Amino acid sequence: MKPEDEMLNWGRLILDGVSYSDMVGARDRPKEITWFDYWMNLANEYEQDAERKVALGHDLSAGELLMSAALCAQYAQFLWFDERRQKGQARKVELYQKAAPLLSPPAERHDLVVDGIPMPVYVRIPEGPGPHPAVIMLGGLESTKEESFQMENLVLDRGMATATFDGPGQGEMFEHKRLAGDYEKYTSAVVDLLTGLETIRNDAIAVLGRSLGGNYALKSAACEPRLAACISWGGFSDLDYWDLETPLTKESWRYVSKVGTLEEARQHVHAALETRDVLPQITCPTYILHGVHDEVPLSFVDTVLDLVPKQHLHLVVEKDGDHCCHNLGIRPRLEMADWLYDVLVAGKTLTPTMKGWPING
Amino acid sequence: MKPEDEMLNWGRLILDGVSYSDMVGARDRPKEITWFDYWMNLANEYEQDAERKVALGHDLSAGELLMSAALCAQYAQFLWFDERRQKGQARKVELYQKAAPLLSPPAERHDLVVDGIPMPVYVRIPEGPGPHPAVIMLGGLESTKEESFQMENLVLDRGMATATFDGPGQGEMFEHKRLAGDYEKYTSAVVDLLTGLETIRNDAIAVLGRSLGGNYALKSAACEPRLAACISWGGFSDLDYWDLETPLTKESWRYVSKVGTLEEARQHVHAALETRDVLPQITCPTYILHGVHDEVPLSFVDTVLDLVPKQHLHLVVEKDGDHCCHNLGIRPRLEMADWLYDVLVAGKTLTPTMKGWPING
Repeated sequence: MKPEDEMLNWGRLILDGVSYSDMVGARDRPKEITWFDYWMNLANEYEQDAERKVALGHDLSAGELLMSAALCAQYAQFLWFDERRQKGQARKVELYQKAAPLLSPPAERHDLVVDGIPMPVYVRIPEGPGPHPAVIMLGGLESTKEESFQMENLVLDRGMATATFDGPGQGEMFEHKRLAGDYEKYTSAVVDLLTGLETIRNDAIAVLGRSLGGNYALKSAACEPRLAACISWGGFSDLDYWDLETPLTKESWRYVSKVGTLEEARQHVHAALETRDVLPQITCPTYILHGVHDEVPLSFVDTVLDLVPKQHLHLVVEKDGDHCCHNLGIRPRLEMADWLYDVLVAGKTLTPTMKGWPING
Repeated sequence: MKPEDEMLNWGRLILDGVSYSDMVGARDRPKEITWFDYWMNLANEYEQDAERKVALGHDLSAGELLMSAALCAQYAQFLWFDERRQKGQARKVELYQKAAPLLSPPAERHDLVVDGIPMPVYVRIPEGPGPHPAVIMLGGLESTKEESFQMENLVLDRGMATATFDGPGQGEMFEHKRLAGDYEKYTSAVVDLLTGLETIRNDAIAVLGRSLGGNYALKSAACEPRLAACISWGGFSDLDYWDLETPLTKESWRYVSKVGTLEEARQHVHAALETRDVLPQITCPTYILHGVHDEVPLSFVDTVLDLVPKQHLHLVVEKDGDHCCHNLGIRPRLEMADWLYDVLVAGKTLTPTMKGWPING
């Protein structure tokens, strides 16, 4: 099995905006073209298309094409742990920065500095009179602020602003700081930023994290009382299940931990990603989406039920779902977007829910 | 080869909004579930989801889910020529009618009667102060007004209204009138409707037709002087190439012609779909999109170059394109949407273009 077969989740890529035709092209590419080169070349093509569009006054299409380019650069690099990784990352950052002002609504870059480390945050504000609720979106192990465009759009369509950034071990912050146990500090820095913006409602800021970001979201919600809602989308509470990880995922943990061996990586992430000590502190509505076929074992749900205060819990267990339930199409994403709307925009008080749980009940 | 393998174009389905996960589910479905039942069941599921969403005040998601349901019903029926066909068609019509008011912007139904035949037209108006240009969208051999949602959105995003309907042999009109050589009459009835709406600019109404609709678009533009622009998206000028059609497509021609034999069908559609006699009458900017790998032979491009007045021509020949260039992803759609913007919104006078032609030049 080639690395791309191990890691490639077509459902995820398509839902995040990668073109089906480009994925078919990647799968069927000539042998002499590498995976990395295929996607990087495609990123160049999309960028050239976009430049032509800008020259013709077609900004909307240009933005769309630059997002496609950025996603190509993302998927070029994410399988590798050599110089290709940073090359693809840098290209993705560059392409997204070019796309940002052309998006509808545009993504505005705020250049924060946290503990002396530059931390760009992109904020998108929906149309209509504000102030608006906001959703802070957290990337995962090999995902970054540039990838949540489609999910952002669902949130924006429902009248909420979005904010994305890279934390320790991710994207632009990776060179300054490896994966660490204090991600919530950076989430809080974004809350600081948002509460300072007139267009944002200070009492209606949520956090939504996917995969590893779902771990960060839980810890951020537990440690940051200003957060009004939390979604852990395919997240986890701890890394007790390390042995179940695929070889490539273990290698990814090692890479973002900046250590030499898998054993060092195991120890580092095990300590950094422990949240069980803080989960009982959660005081905001908390949405847990878990797929039974996720490599994160079902025991995570037990942990959540044990530790997250029941009155705040909205638990959804999908019996057919894979990691992050990407294989279920748009429906889980609509569910999360509508839940955020209910909590942040409509201000509904939701009763605790357990959908699909117990799984045989 | 199963019928679905012959007809199924994954690129088309995904770009029109079918979920990738649903397509995988169709491909991998248990043997005892038929193609028809798979999609019709899924339509029911999406509808139930949508009803739940409406009850919760989540109209945006409900509209999205009902569009998914309508597309499922479309792809359930389009391979069959027995009672399944009308069953799926009727279901699609019903689901779309339910979706229409929930879409953003909504689709408003106008119940026209043309020559005593009921002809519903759905109009979607973009946000912002009008009056707006409009694009009339024509379905094809087995496609109807319910299927152009995604293309409509690209046009609406660029400040143009959309109008969709079924003509002879299509969707709701099929029971009253088989495929015929006077489709342009029905296009003109929609122009009548649009010119009577205050929100529409009478001098900026275009027609866009896909596949067989691309043939209808050409004839409509030739015969209706009020049309300000025309796009023939994977269309054709005539059916001289009948022998190249697949068995299933020939059967489809027979079905919509309401005749008993393929030879009768050949004769009927050959006469009905001839446009060469009127192409020289075209007086508006006309965009021809053709893929070299289309089953419609490249000689169509020669015909266009011979007969459509050169000063109105915007010819795009994609050397890697299949029928309607569905395999090229979103790019051809963005090109068409931006061209419509240039002609109708920006009022640009475009110079005649020949992109990708001559193919070896």
